[in-house]
Amino acid sequence: MAPVVDVHTHIYPPAYVSLLRSRKDVPYMRTFPDNPSAGERLVILPSEDAATSTARGRPIGPEYYEEEEKIKFMDKHHIDISVISLANPWLDWCDKGEAAEAARMINDDVEAVCARHAGRLYAFGTLPLSAGAEAVVEEIKRLQALKYSRGVIIGTSGLGAGLDDPAMNPIWNALQETKQLVFLHPHYGLPASVYGDRANDYGHVLPLALGFPLETTIAITRAILSGVFDHYPNLEILLAHSGGTLPFLAGRIESCIAHDGHLKHAGKTEGRRSIWEILKSNIYLDAVVYAEPGLKAAIEASGMDRCMFGTDHPFFPPLEDEGDEWVSVKTNAEAVGKAFGTDEAAREAVMGGNAVRVLRLG
Amino acid sequence: MAPVVDVHTHIYPPAYVSLLRSRKDVPYMRTFPDNPSAGERLVILPSEDAATSTARGRPIGPEYYEEEEKIKFMDKHHIDISVISLANPWLDWCDKGEAAEAARMINDDVEAVCARHAGRLYAFGTLPLSAGAEAVVEEIKRLQALKYSRGVIIGTSGLGAGLDDPAMNPIWNALQETKQLVFLHPHYGLPASVYGDRANDYGHVLPLALGFPLETTIAITRAILSGVFDHYPNLEILLAHSGGTLPFLAGRIESCIAHDGHLKHAGKTEGRRSIWEILKSNIYLDAVVYAEPGLKAAIEASGMDRCMFGTDHPFFPPLEDEGDEWVSVKTNAEAVGKAFGTDEAAREAVMGGNAVRVLRLG
Repeated sequence: MAPVVDVHTHIYPPAYVSLLRSRKDVPYMRTFPDNPSAGERLVILPSEDAATSTARGRPIGPEYYEEEEKIKFMDKHHIDISVISLANPWLDWCDKGEAAEAARMINDDVEAVCARHAGRLYAFGTLPLSAGAEAVVEEIKRLQALKYSRGVIIGTSGLGAGLDDPAMNPIWNALQETKQLVFLHPHYGLPASVYGDRANDYGHVLPLALGFPLETTIAITRAILSGVFDHYPNLEILLAHSGGTLPFLAGRIESCIAHDGHLKHAGKTEGRRSIWEILKSNIYLDAVVYAEPGLKAAIEASGMDRCMFGTDHPFFPPLEDEGDEWVSVKTNAEAVGKAFGTDEAAREAVMGGNAVRVLRLG
Repeated sequence: MAPVVDVHTHIYPPAYVSLLRSRKDVPYMRTFPDNPSAGERLVILPSEDAATSTARGRPIGPEYYEEEEKIKFMDKHHIDISVISLANPWLDWCDKGEAAEAARMINDDVEAVCARHAGRLYAFGTLPLSAGAEAVVEEIKRLQALKYSRGVIIGTSGLGAGLDDPAMNPIWNALQETKQLVFLHPHYGLPASVYGDRANDYGHVLPLALGFPLETTIAITRAILSGVFDHYPNLEILLAHSGGTLPFLAGRIESCIAHDGHLKHAGKTEGRRSIWEILKSNIYLDAVVYAEPGLKAAIEASGMDRCMFGTDHPFFPPLEDEGDEWVSVKTNAEAVGKAFGTDEAAREAVMGGNAVRVLRLG
């Protein structure tokens, strides 16, 4: 039986926690004197930085930064291997002069964590994107030599101007050359105006449930349209949250490209690779979509050999400590089970076999 | 064999064309003196109002406003019945004082079109939303008496502040009471900033392929979160483009609601109807998603008895007159065929049987 592997699971290692605790603007970690019972809070999105203590960020505890908590969580949920990554917002906000050093410290921290749990933990590295392409390429090369590193995690802003920015080319090139997978993860969401005047009535639902996956969808579509996968045909990207909504919208995007008179007139569509081809040869999707209709669309779009289980731990914990399985984890695992019915081999592939093969684990 | 029914097909009747030709800002119709060979252009989105003639809006011809062109298109594509609706941006931009009269003129125009092709054409009516709820309710009641009217089409802005605006309540109430289906259709897209600096390099792809369905997703989610379907449990909404991305994201939205401490703390989640329940009892989805993965997700989310074929005619015409079937139509029809394999009864239901039953056609 293939091991169960979690490819979408985050940690804030000590080097990063120190940075967050020293900050006063989003992203930051602190307790609030007006409400000490709310405990230490982690505020990572501007939309979470609200006035009431129950809405402000989220309670943060050892599950965010202590490696033993990750292992306990894995044991409780029968997860054999986790590929841990720094959670958003990574170092996107970091001063240019400090980002390279911070990335090295974080990656070394995480490497040490993995070494202490050899065989159970691997990692996606953090890049100093705010320091520019040269520093990023240097860290990509350094990561290649780390024993437990299996790729990198990046946000949708790239070097600041998105993934269709030509300044990203040396980075794509280095990732393709060193065969390191890119885990693309959202953070920025959408402008608050799209949620209307009553958004605060809905807690964090709109930015988390919609802002995140829609951001990912836009980012990867911009990358595709700009020709990233035409120029770097061996680049491999794992998309968070089952691709945002890319599996659902791929047909519409293809149709809009095919029917765009301006693109055709400008000769921009000749020889391009279709989104379906890219989905089946460059893109991997996690299985973090919380229901069968989305998961089946993901599997159908990119193939059952390209979809990999994840939990998004330590986010989406139970609201009360219920002492057993996290509902968020169970929901995703059950969706995988239901999607495959009696095809146990396919279920095992998505639950871990694909990750073992793609990321060379164990 | 059930008739083939197109529930997503637009027309600009004469009363509306006159309005568009008299305008100088988006939305408008005109020829450009600097490029008369580009012909009359229809510019409906600010993002389409670009400097170059090939990117500016779209060429507009008789297929947009002549009823005989609709019938010819239907005959060519073996469509037995079309439920025509005014295309975006409807009367959202119309002066408050003129909207009610304009809506009446347009609806009477369209009713006359349907009467001239009895049995082949039905309609979704236009509402004078910029005139306020009272005028809208009045037109909803008037539409109920029109022989060929089968519901209304609305955009995502509602009365101006979205579908979660409490000022919409009298409108939802009137629609529920008169049992008229709401066809929810996007128009506004997303703020241009999300597409980055290179968006113009991609023709109209980003706003059309992503902006439209993401807008629909946000709008319907806001309506659900605000309790519209709790307060109006018999309200029925047909979502354009297979729900935007709602079928794919429904699981994530449910999970985010269930894990939101603020919502729970405020007691806002008690007794609410789940999105799955709403999808299966209040929502219908068209089959305009251009590929099998998305279509299957739509069918799985709301049920094969709630999904209805559409074309989006006269939008997405072939780039050159190829003399036969439109690719955009063929792509959607083939997706329905592939989604059902040999289950001919299910295929016929989506291609027309569901629409006949739900909209009481023929």
